[in-house]
Amino acid sequence: MDTSALWQRYQTWLYYHEGLEMYLDVSRMRFEPEQIESLKPKFDKAFKDMEELERGAIANPDENRMVGHYWLRDPDLAPSEEIKQEILQPLTQIETFAQKILAGTLKPPQAAKFTDILSIGIGGSALGPQFVAQALASDFPPLEIHFIDNSDPAGIDSVLARIGNRLKSTLVIVISKSGSTPEPRNGMQEVKHAYERQGLNFARHAVATTMPGSKLDRQAKTEGWLEVFPMQDWVGGRTSEMSSVGLLPAALQGIDIRAMLAGAKEMDAATRIRDFKNNPAALLAFCWYCAGNGKGTKDMVILPYKDSLLLFSRYLQQLVMESLGKEKDLDGNVVNQGIAVYGNKGSTDQHAYVQQLREGIANFFATFIEVLEDRQGTSIELEPGITSGDYLSGFLQGTRQALYENHRDSITITIPQVNPRTVGALIALYERAVGLYASLVNINAYHQPGVEAGKKAAASILELQKQVMEAIASAKEPIDLATLAQQAGASKQVEAVYKIVRHLEANNRGIVIQGDRAKPSNLKVTAG
Amino acid sequence: MDTSALWQRYQTWLYYHEGLEMYLDVSRMRFEPEQIESLKPKFDKAFKDMEELERGAIANPDENRMVGHYWLRDPDLAPSEEIKQEILQPLTQIETFAQKILAGTLKPPQAAKFTDILSIGIGGSALGPQFVAQALASDFPPLEIHFIDNSDPAGIDSVLARIGNRLKSTLVIVISKSGSTPEPRNGMQEVKHAYERQGLNFARHAVATTMPGSKLDRQAKTEGWLEVFPMQDWVGGRTSEMSSVGLLPAALQGIDIRAMLAGAKEMDAATRIRDFKNNPAALLAFCWYCAGNGKGTKDMVILPYKDSLLLFSRYLQQLVMESLGKEKDLDGNVVNQGIAVYGNKGSTDQHAYVQQLREGIANFFATFIEVLEDRQGTSIELEPGITSGDYLSGFLQGTRQALYENHRDSITITIPQVNPRTVGALIALYERAVGLYASLVNINAYHQPGVEAGKKAAASILELQKQVMEAIASAKEPIDLATLAQQAGASKQVEAVYKIVRHLEANNRGIVIQGDRAKPSNLKVTAG
Repeated sequence: MDTSALWQRYQTWLYYHEGLEMYLDVSRMRFEPEQIESLKPKFDKAFKDMEELERGAIANPDENRMVGHYWLRDPDLAPSEEIKQEILQPLTQIETFAQKILAGTLKPPQAAKFTDILSIGIGGSALGPQFVAQALASDFPPLEIHFIDNSDPAGIDSVLARIGNRLKSTLVIVISKSGSTPEPRNGMQEVKHAYERQGLNFARHAVATTMPGSKLDRQAKTEGWLEVFPMQDWVGGRTSEMSSVGLLPAALQGIDIRAMLAGAKEMDAATRIRDFKNNPAALLAFCWYCAGNGKGTKDMVILPYKDSLLLFSRYLQQLVMESLGKEKDLDGNVVNQGIAVYGNKGSTDQHAYVQQLREGIANFFATFIEVLEDRQGTSIELEPGITSGDYLSGFLQGTRQALYENHRDSITITIPQVNPRTVGALIALYERAVGLYASLVNINAYHQPGVEAGKKAAASILELQKQVMEAIASAKEPIDLATLAQQAGASKQVEAVYKIVRHLEANNRGIVIQGDRAKPSNLKVTAG
Repeated sequence: MDTSALWQRYQTWLYYHEGLEMYLDVSRMRFEPEQIESLKPKFDKAFKDMEELERGAIANPDENRMVGHYWLRDPDLAPSEEIKQEILQPLTQIETFAQKILAGTLKPPQAAKFTDILSIGIGGSALGPQFVAQALASDFPPLEIHFIDNSDPAGIDSVLARIGNRLKSTLVIVISKSGSTPEPRNGMQEVKHAYERQGLNFARHAVATTMPGSKLDRQAKTEGWLEVFPMQDWVGGRTSEMSSVGLLPAALQGIDIRAMLAGAKEMDAATRIRDFKNNPAALLAFCWYCAGNGKGTKDMVILPYKDSLLLFSRYLQQLVMESLGKEKDLDGNVVNQGIAVYGNKGSTDQHAYVQQLREGIANFFATFIEVLEDRQGTSIELEPGITSGDYLSGFLQGTRQALYENHRDSITITIPQVNPRTVGALIALYERAVGLYASLVNINAYHQPGVEAGKKAAASILELQKQVMEAIASAKEPIDLATLAQQAGASKQVEAVYKIVRHLEANNRGIVIQGDRAKPSNLKVTAG
């Protein structure tokens, strides 16, 4: 297609949202008019599914749950007055609490004011808050946020070391929907221990974000934590950024959460339109479908040309992959769906993996995120009439063009600036696109049955570890791994036993391994 | 395969490096004995290619260059005395310089000591130093490092704002091999301007890492910068971590660079072995080949279970994708090679995209990085006999098992701890694996011809911008985009002209656009 025809295609397909000043350009995706026609019935169904979901249908049948993240931005749409209050009440609670913290009227026992936030959560409880903090917090926010998003002891130590003696002015947020996920529970216990070591009263620093009645909720209330913020049963982790999970840390960092919600609400309205050419989420879902043949055969590469949007790809990795990566469709057929998502930022990636994107295996489509405003304030000229921002803009156009020339397709989303409204809108856009795409391929986007197997396997490893430690303690002499496995009641789990003792030994947990490390079956284990 | 057979396979294939205490486990990759046999001739050639490369052959024929990153860790292997000195001299220079900075004998004009480093570089000049800083710098390094790795004005502003008035005690490292890459040049000019605004003498804060004789080299010498560190012609950006590019910032952060080099040297020796079962890099390359059928049909998902290794996947993204993502093989055939790489960290990703890995589209293989040491010092028990580190270890084993059960293959690399030696060894391991794989598929791993097109297209956009600005300035009345393009001498580039004016307008660059934004062809542009 020559440049004139492309310009025509650009204009034909350009989507523009006037209120949000947001553009969506799908002109560089090579779909055909026939594909539009053939997908129309699927889209009709997708729009209908979405309408039912928004009305309160059990859109997550496996877990028998409603799916209500869209109500969070427009509580009037909630299917009942009760649910409406479940949204409005925490919003007021968050704003009141944040106000007290920021004003210093609620303060820690041994400091004049809270200065830092330590957020303990994993998955959806971390990825949204991390993305939003990087995108929207000012360089010197009223409270600086830190994250413990793993069960890595060295990682926890590093976060605590960097907070140092500001622990006494740190507000700890423990986020866990069920209250029983091990990672946040581990992080909380480690942090609580650090508070105790410094002679500080953990409860006077801690708040919980959890489902009412959860184990964490009960603990927080029993121990007299500062506050408990409710999570709604009908909000999943990966769509929880506009619930207490995301709004509390945002508000504490001075981010305008009402603007985030307003931006998302505007986008939600735009993505309800049942004409997919005029619905940006439907356009995205359509492009994803065409690119990957409805089977995810192309990876989604996310390239925001703006440093502050660096974590958007990681956020979308969860939203897209956990929602769409499913073994079975809604009728029980094995479909192994999904779309792999990765990315970083432009133009940095031009100097990393764009080589492969342009020339290598064509197993992807790109999504450029363009931000029109370069910076606040004016720019110096690097050469007459040219600024750093002009370069960045030129790199985006150049890379898009170079990819297209080599038959690598791309979508471009353009926003006027990175602000709470546009970030709220971006999140809402992708949430809806994922929901619509799930309907197109007939899967449940709102459960995650595949993570259970790994959790169970991990739990059985920990159970086995206890048995192994007992067996070693009661062994009279060094024993080999097969014998140890047998004595731990797990004669078939020799490899797992080996991994356990190797890890225990490396951490000075009273276990010594002797023998040639290259030949595990020759090793002998003993207490020591 | 049942657990006993798997344990047998584990032992059969286990690679262990005694000196580095490093394990490589490929037992969960489903390759067959026939594949080993059929690849033997290719491996023989790969080993031979590698030997020639190390002897100084022109291993990068397109650029007529030797490829010498292995000499950096073992200068005695350099093909000439001259090259040996090109390695030893900068190493001494770095150590002497770092010592002066750390001791405070070389200090900034208006502060007692340098406190911060501002590193300006992109691609290989940023990814290695970023990975190593996160992996190896202590929580309170002698100098804290900041990165400008893009041409994003807001990103630059944010880095400078956070440095604030410590700019007067900041050492600026400008890294650019050719000295003419726009991004570091832009960053340097922006930073220089910030110094001037604060009345500081930039030259007394600046060092350059560049090729002798480059534009940057000349500028640094003319302006009297503190020092210039040489880059070698025969070291590519993505394999430059053990050159001045990586070693200077590492040394300034108090990282033991001799240990990094020693770890890499040990790994280099291990990966020279011509028996691929006893050569960990060959084993990796073999697994990649089998997984993706020698065509990269499976993505490489990197899952380090250690927060400090978070950036390893981003580092490998460049190393692997820029090296292997090639249109043509060495005989000129179109092959569109490559392996897509992404990842983040475990067990965090268990709560993000492992759902898709386990159940969704099976278009990947995983690489787990296990670190045996949980933390420095002892751990609290979360429940009797169980620590956070036990959980992390259990999650790794559990996820590996859950993936394998569902026919998703994985490699596991185990290191005793994250330290300069093991990080050096990991880098060397992957550098060699990439080199060997490139031989297997008969491509040049050391050039990047595909990035030129995007650069050229970007340059032409900037050229066009100047013409557009002139055309607008001389227009008597508002003109439409087609007319503007014509008057800018680019009547076929209407879309590019549109993008340019939209960007200029958003940045108050004296351009006003009127009309319906949803219909670009109706817009009128005028100076204003």
